[in-house]
Amino acid sequence: MEHEVLRKLRSAASKAGHDALVAFSQDNVTYTAGFLVPSHASNRFRRTITVLAGDQFAAQIVVNVEENLARQRSRFSDIRAYNQFTQDAADLLADALLEAGVGSGQIAIELDYMPAQDYIRLCERLPHAKFVPCHELYFNARMIKTDEEIAVLKDVGELTDRVIGETLREIRPGMTEKSVAQMIGNKMLEGGCDGLKCQVGSGVRSGITNCTPTDKAVEQSDIVRVEILGDMKHYRSNVTRTAVVGEATDEQCGIWEVMIGARETCKSILKPGTAVAELYRAYVKYLRDRGIEPTLKFLGHGIGQTIHEEPYITDTRTVVLEPNMTCTMEPLYMIPGRMGFHVEDMYRITPTGFEAMTGAITPNDELIRIG
Amino acid sequence: MEHEVLRKLRSAASKAGHDALVAFSQDNVTYTAGFLVPSHASNRFRRTITVLAGDQFAAQIVVNVEENLARQRSRFSDIRAYNQFTQDAADLLADALLEAGVGSGQIAIELDYMPAQDYIRLCERLPHAKFVPCHELYFNARMIKTDEEIAVLKDVGELTDRVIGETLREIRPGMTEKSVAQMIGNKMLEGGCDGLKCQVGSGVRSGITNCTPTDKAVEQSDIVRVEILGDMKHYRSNVTRTAVVGEATDEQCGIWEVMIGARETCKSILKPGTAVAELYRAYVKYLRDRGIEPTLKFLGHGIGQTIHEEPYITDTRTVVLEPNMTCTMEPLYMIPGRMGFHVEDMYRITPTGFEAMTGAITPNDELIRIG
Repeated sequence: MEHEVLRKLRSAASKAGHDALVAFSQDNVTYTAGFLVPSHASNRFRRTITVLAGDQFAAQIVVNVEENLARQRSRFSDIRAYNQFTQDAADLLADALLEAGVGSGQIAIELDYMPAQDYIRLCERLPHAKFVPCHELYFNARMIKTDEEIAVLKDVGELTDRVIGETLREIRPGMTEKSVAQMIGNKMLEGGCDGLKCQVGSGVRSGITNCTPTDKAVEQSDIVRVEILGDMKHYRSNVTRTAVVGEATDEQCGIWEVMIGARETCKSILKPGTAVAELYRAYVKYLRDRGIEPTLKFLGHGIGQTIHEEPYITDTRTVVLEPNMTCTMEPLYMIPGRMGFHVEDMYRITPTGFEAMTGAITPNDELIRIG
Repeated sequence: MEHEVLRKLRSAASKAGHDALVAFSQDNVTYTAGFLVPSHASNRFRRTITVLAGDQFAAQIVVNVEENLARQRSRFSDIRAYNQFTQDAADLLADALLEAGVGSGQIAIELDYMPAQDYIRLCERLPHAKFVPCHELYFNARMIKTDEEIAVLKDVGELTDRVIGETLREIRPGMTEKSVAQMIGNKMLEGGCDGLKCQVGSGVRSGITNCTPTDKAVEQSDIVRVEILGDMKHYRSNVTRTAVVGEATDEQCGIWEVMIGARETCKSILKPGTAVAELYRAYVKYLRDRGIEPTLKFLGHGIGQTIHEEPYITDTRTVVLEPNMTCTMEPLYMIPGRMGFHVEDMYRITPTGFEAMTGAITPNDELIRIG
């Protein structure tokens, strides 16, 4: 039997009246095929494409140098390889769609990602086909995680939760942000991650939202904001902690209490049936009622193959929470030029509420104390 | 006066009869604007676009969360921000092109990268415009490096050359490939790199072309192949060395002599006026005359903002070398299931020949001996 993910996508495509479903982007192709073609991430001239059509047809198009790997690791058994320098992957796609008998059909395809050039070529080759977006279809399918996906997300979340705590305990004044980042990198890779990014902002730099580590040393009284984004078996973690070197001031404690209060309020409605917009509004209201204007226009985001995916927790979205959705909540408040406050954990929606996938190992209910 | 890169692009666009030049891809936008918008690399829903039109018009379109950073760091002073959730970046692009007075003009644009959806929207908004590819224009401009670019490439090359030598000297039997990779990572980051990738293959794994480090321990008699790809200020390095633990066998020494002989032969014609196809053929002939079939269909590749860029050193390209082109040459021979041989350095073409940007610190004219 086909893999659960392929059956799910086929069923969603069929319900939407599509004759075929075609993915081009790294995240959707990796989700569909179950593995990342390495050069998909590193070489924008090498297309990797998955095609599902009707009840049966399933093919993956890869550059010839990745053909053997794809045969070993893809969920697709029909692997079609092209020469990057002499062939056009869009032609292989057109051939596949014709072979599947859907050359005049409704093709759901990643119009928001596929290169214009490939679209132009496909329109030439299949002049009677109708091309429609599949953005929503993929994001809706990906929002609800399979048990297999949840297991990996828990593993990478737990590792990240542990590493962020160990690292914060080892920070001493005088260490640079870069050396903190290096410590995180080593621990994450030793722990089984395939890759990671991290942000470390200390002192006034804690007030920069996307904060690349620098040679600045962590100093007495600094707020230290550490965010880790892990990558394990193509699934991601995202955990952020805020700490202070020495004693927190009354102002800092007061702000932090509001951030945590907002998070706890949101947790109380984090369950199936809650609209993400409602969750976001509860967050904003809690902060504003206490004189704090939230820095970001969202409270959190889905997490899976990618760091930012649906459901975004914001009032521009209409998603209603369902079991096995996974997301972060990340109350964040930056005072530019002074300091920043940010706590982020990963959650899975359960039939009755939620399971926190991170936070048990390294809680941050109070500002973590360094040194 | 405008930055040299902008003047160069404007001039190339004008010569080709284009009324505007629009970039969407991370490498071309970063090349044009002189800095990487962080989420360009991490979030495919956030478009970052540069627009040059006529003699004067220059604007960069970024997501609103990156607006301040762009104002600080971009070469463009006209920064136009959009809200990712409520606005379409393609509309800002259409507005910019109309404002520049080229709404009915010939727009050179990255058809091989821009999403089909944005192309469809632009065609709606500018029904009289003619959209043509700019792939060649950008790659031709980027092939010839400015002094500023060469300085960074030399810095990152020199660091990589040093780190690969230091690391090889520190390897001892029993260390895992992953621990070798970690050592490289730490040294590269300490040395000022912003990021890196590396490949470490030992024993039979040295015979895998793209070889992710594993828990395999380096053992006595192993061939060890180490490739480092550094990233400093958006410019890249690529250096590979082959070593052996203990004494090389006669077979290994014989193969290595041929690899180095091929490289030296190629160096003798590495100068302005040589066609890359000629260089490639000289390489292939040298190897085949000695009974070795080269594993890859190219001898090397341009290096700059990206690891693989023009000029590819292969017979599918018609490029003729010119001063200030930068490329690698990487003789590579894999015997799958047994072992692999690979040496790669970075070169700059000078008015009379070439300058080796790497290799002075860690030569590999003989197999490097470990332990």
